[in-house]
Amino acid sequence: MLKFDRQGLIPTVIQDNTTGEVLMVAFMNEEALRLTRETGYTHFFSRSRNAIWRKGEQSGNVQEVRDILVNCEENSLLIRVIQHGEAACHEGYRSCYYRRLLPDNAYAARA
Amino acid sequence: MLKFDRQGLIPTVIQDNTTGEVLMVAFMNEEALRLTRETGYTHFFSRSRNAIWRKGEQSGNVQEVRDILVNCEENSLLIRVIQHGEAACHEGYRSCYYRRLLPDNAYAARA
Repeated sequence: MLKFDRQGLIPTVIQDNTTGEVLMVAFMNEEALRLTRETGYTHFFSRSRNAIWRKGEQSGNVQEVRDILVNCEENSLLIRVIQHGEAACHEGYRSCYYRRLLPDNAYAARA
Repeated sequence: MLKFDRQGLIPTVIQDNTTGEVLMVAFMNEEALRLTRETGYTHFFSRSRNAIWRKGEQSGNVQEVRDILVNCEENSLLIRVIQHGEAACHEGYRSCYYRRLLPDNAYAARA
């Protein structure tokens, strides 16, 4: 049985089903997971807004679910998706991980 | 600047640098991240044991860091690694995501 944390959330990795690129990490609660499975498109729970959101509801860059995988400890998810539109990241990048962490804690653009 | 959560943790995705496979998700605190960067091998913070552990310290299946990436919101990490040994998962699987979530909340082996 899936283990949601004390806030009722489970961390979820979103991976491009075609390229294998990791696009983002977000949190789901039970309702967001239910909506994701029912609709076939990713939904998440926003901790800052305390609300469920459908990924791409503003931008149109929705994520079509291809596979939902569970880890050994049943406390995280890996969802493989078809990413619609150009970008998964609200900053306009394909992936949210567009920067590298440098030794001095600064960032550089990903090579 | 990196944003650790209220418990001082940041979720970290570990990805095989060669295959792109997502191997696991774990949490780091500042000290685990510092050790990871200093040694070049992943260290995590265990919430259940309240302690830092070096991945592979028991099994020998250590993870050699190739790249540390930061997301747009600076609240998660993606670390690309060379996975030593056969398995990243303590259950003996290459990846912790060896099961698929089924519509009835049961699991099946990943295809």
